[in-house]
Amino acid sequence: MKKKISIAGPELRNILKSESAKEQIYSIFENVHPFEIYSLIEGLEIDEIGKIIEYIKFPKASDIFEYFDDDDREEIFRTFNRNDMITMIEEMSSDDRVDLVKSLDDNLVNTLMPLIAQAERNDIKRLIKYDEETAGSIMTTEYAALRQDMTAKEGLTHLKKIAPDRETIYSIYITNNERIIRGVLSLKALIIAKDNQLIGDIMKTDFVFVNVNDDQEAVSKIIADYDLLAVPVVDENMRLFGIITIDDIVDVVIEEDTEDFLRHGSVEGEADYLDANPFKLAKQRIVWLLLLVIVGFISGYIMQLKESVLHSVIALTFFLPLLNGSAGNAGTQSSTIIIRGLATGEVKFSDVKIILLKEISIGIILGILLGLAAGLRAIILNNDFRLAITVAISMVTVVTLANILGALFPLLFKKMKLDPALMSAPFIASIVDILSIFIYLSLAGYIFKV
Amino acid sequence: MKKKISIAGPELRNILKSESAKEQIYSIFENVHPFEIYSLIEGLEIDEIGKIIEYIKFPKASDIFEYFDDDDREEIFRTFNRNDMITMIEEMSSDDRVDLVKSLDDNLVNTLMPLIAQAERNDIKRLIKYDEETAGSIMTTEYAALRQDMTAKEGLTHLKKIAPDRETIYSIYITNNERIIRGVLSLKALIIAKDNQLIGDIMKTDFVFVNVNDDQEAVSKIIADYDLLAVPVVDENMRLFGIITIDDIVDVVIEEDTEDFLRHGSVEGEADYLDANPFKLAKQRIVWLLLLVIVGFISGYIMQLKESVLHSVIALTFFLPLLNGSAGNAGTQSSTIIIRGLATGEVKFSDVKIILLKEISIGIILGILLGLAAGLRAIILNNDFRLAITVAISMVTVVTLANILGALFPLLFKKMKLDPALMSAPFIASIVDILSIFIYLSLAGYIFKV
Repeated sequence: MKKKISIAGPELRNILKSESAKEQIYSIFENVHPFEIYSLIEGLEIDEIGKIIEYIKFPKASDIFEYFDDDDREEIFRTFNRNDMITMIEEMSSDDRVDLVKSLDDNLVNTLMPLIAQAERNDIKRLIKYDEETAGSIMTTEYAALRQDMTAKEGLTHLKKIAPDRETIYSIYITNNERIIRGVLSLKALIIAKDNQLIGDIMKTDFVFVNVNDDQEAVSKIIADYDLLAVPVVDENMRLFGIITIDDIVDVVIEEDTEDFLRHGSVEGEADYLDANPFKLAKQRIVWLLLLVIVGFISGYIMQLKESVLHSVIALTFFLPLLNGSAGNAGTQSSTIIIRGLATGEVKFSDVKIILLKEISIGIILGILLGLAAGLRAIILNNDFRLAITVAISMVTVVTLANILGALFPLLFKKMKLDPALMSAPFIASIVDILSIFIYLSLAGYIFKV
Repeated sequence: MKKKISIAGPELRNILKSESAKEQIYSIFENVHPFEIYSLIEGLEIDEIGKIIEYIKFPKASDIFEYFDDDDREEIFRTFNRNDMITMIEEMSSDDRVDLVKSLDDNLVNTLMPLIAQAERNDIKRLIKYDEETAGSIMTTEYAALRQDMTAKEGLTHLKKIAPDRETIYSIYITNNERIIRGVLSLKALIIAKDNQLIGDIMKTDFVFVNVNDDQEAVSKIIADYDLLAVPVVDENMRLFGIITIDDIVDVVIEEDTEDFLRHGSVEGEADYLDANPFKLAKQRIVWLLLLVIVGFISGYIMQLKESVLHSVIALTFFLPLLNGSAGNAGTQSSTIIIRGLATGEVKFSDVKIILLKEISIGIILGILLGLAAGLRAIILNNDFRLAITVAISMVTVVTLANILGALFPLLFKKMKLDPALMSAPFIASIVDILSIFIYLSLAGYIFKV
């Protein structure tokens, strides 16, 4: 890594209070990368951040601004003066700009919109109607387009002119007068081409594209699978609306993986952890906890029904944590593998037969090993052979069952077009809990003849 | 998405048996994207896949080949004839090529190496010494370099010549005779520049770079944070060894997130799920399961020590699944949030005080809610006020404790430079289990005076 500038928060704070704050801030950060500036100032107060961004000037100011998350952006934006608000909106990349406008209150938007340059204003109006997490909401309209009757040389000259305003010129799109896409061309192919070759002759006509309404996760899979730098976003008539570039996809992949990870850990909603207050964070967790309380009541109720068994052989209870823990863990393991396999595309619903056979085999192997350990413990510490048999048989049964259910639930969710990650680990563990208590105590009742 | 070619496995199998297999396979797939070919043939037998790849010819053959995972690649490679083996190694991208050579047995490598073109052979020798998951192991040596005394026009002419052999020409590196890197230049900047401007004058001299030994996860964070298309890989003397491109990073991000996800679900090792046999898969899971068996033994032992309490108030056992489930789930939730926050960089070890305060607050809020529910259940179904008090107080205590431990373990692991995702959800749940049983039964002993 390159060396970073080192300046501490308090130092910046003092500079901000001085008369020459504007000039000093500008010169300190003149040659510093926007990400480093962001890292240095993110811990400051919102109005301090706002000032520093304003002092740094455009276009760099908007690059720094875009590193903040949606909530912070909105607050920082409100500290800007009117002129900087307008320039910021005009300078931001088109996808981030729309997110910002969506987060502002209507009064402010109505005041600002007439003051924004017409091209940008139309762009906002066009993009604002797409649902979140769709291709339309993450695409940018700043793509490079050429006509197919241009020569390679003319194309390159035209690119030279338009390049400064485009998000990327490495993927080039060939459209007709109705913006219908005819082909795509990489800048590499254009550079390699002979000067007088026609764009129409060197462009690729069998290219990958996505629809404006496609889900962003599907789009990121396509970009990753086809090793693309950008993918064109079109409507049913192949009209080009924008492009999605690979750097946005890196963010989408991280975002979607975070969602899956949190859901599987039974946390709902966005992880705005450090900023949110405890009540908001507790709300993210309470739904699952309460659901599992009901599951706990059911387990308890089953035990109450089997009270006589427990009463006559109190040692049975000593193995409850072991049985529940093992079954819960086995269920977590198989659900983890299947959920992740579905997310990366390694596993499909059509593999359901192979998966079930595998999980049953694994369950029996693991169950026998764990059952032997548990049975041995019963003989050594409790010197009770019937107890050992009860525990061992229960272990094999519940671990196998846990493996099957852990794999089956995510697969069924996928089949029903629900997110498999909704099947949280604790939920599967709890369902398995109920079953294991029931099997264990029923078997005990039979073996001990209570 | 574009329309895909549709041809079924059995159909391909028949074609492979015909006399004109070579020609037919070639023409079927002539205009099909390598990823689509991969998707169509991945389900076939290894030797069938090998034949199809050989019939499709280079360089496309190597593009298809690279979509397979490491294990499959090695098996497919062994079906090739000698000539195709050599061409395949020469045509593959330099990072994938090294992985393949590493997986082959020494005899084969020793036979093939002398037959490989010298440039590629040297490249393999240079790259093979880097540890897996380092920058050196995922970099490519096929970068585009220019000299700083060239004009923009000369640079572009030179690029035209070398472009076909380079992984990317969109990031250009300016080096001296000792391969010491002097600056970087985007192709966009080169295109925008005037014809007679010197490369040395338009290149960026404050650029981001990584060291050959840096961890691949750190590299992917840098590329994502700085919005780069590629990052140069250098040694201590700033000598340029290769570059890492953003499309490789997408794969790294997915790979690392998969690792985290599986570990948190207490599964060890690679998820080669559909291919591996049940014994291999059971091995991935047994370590954690056995560890948790020990935890289960401890819980059971504590119960055995408190046998007299359990014996006199058997209803206490009915609340064990509820207490354990709630505490386990609370621990899973907080560990999930902290592990993911650490992975995305949202949370740092230095936030430990804020985090603990938050988790204690959240624990008390959730504990009171769950404690009330549990206490109510004790009064309604068991009509026992002392039991209700015991359960309710235990619930508040253990949920708060679970929140603290769930957050603390991953933070401590991070501090000790271990992977926080090693702290699996079931492990945290089990530790919390032991504590909750101990607290619950001790409190019960005190309240019921047993």
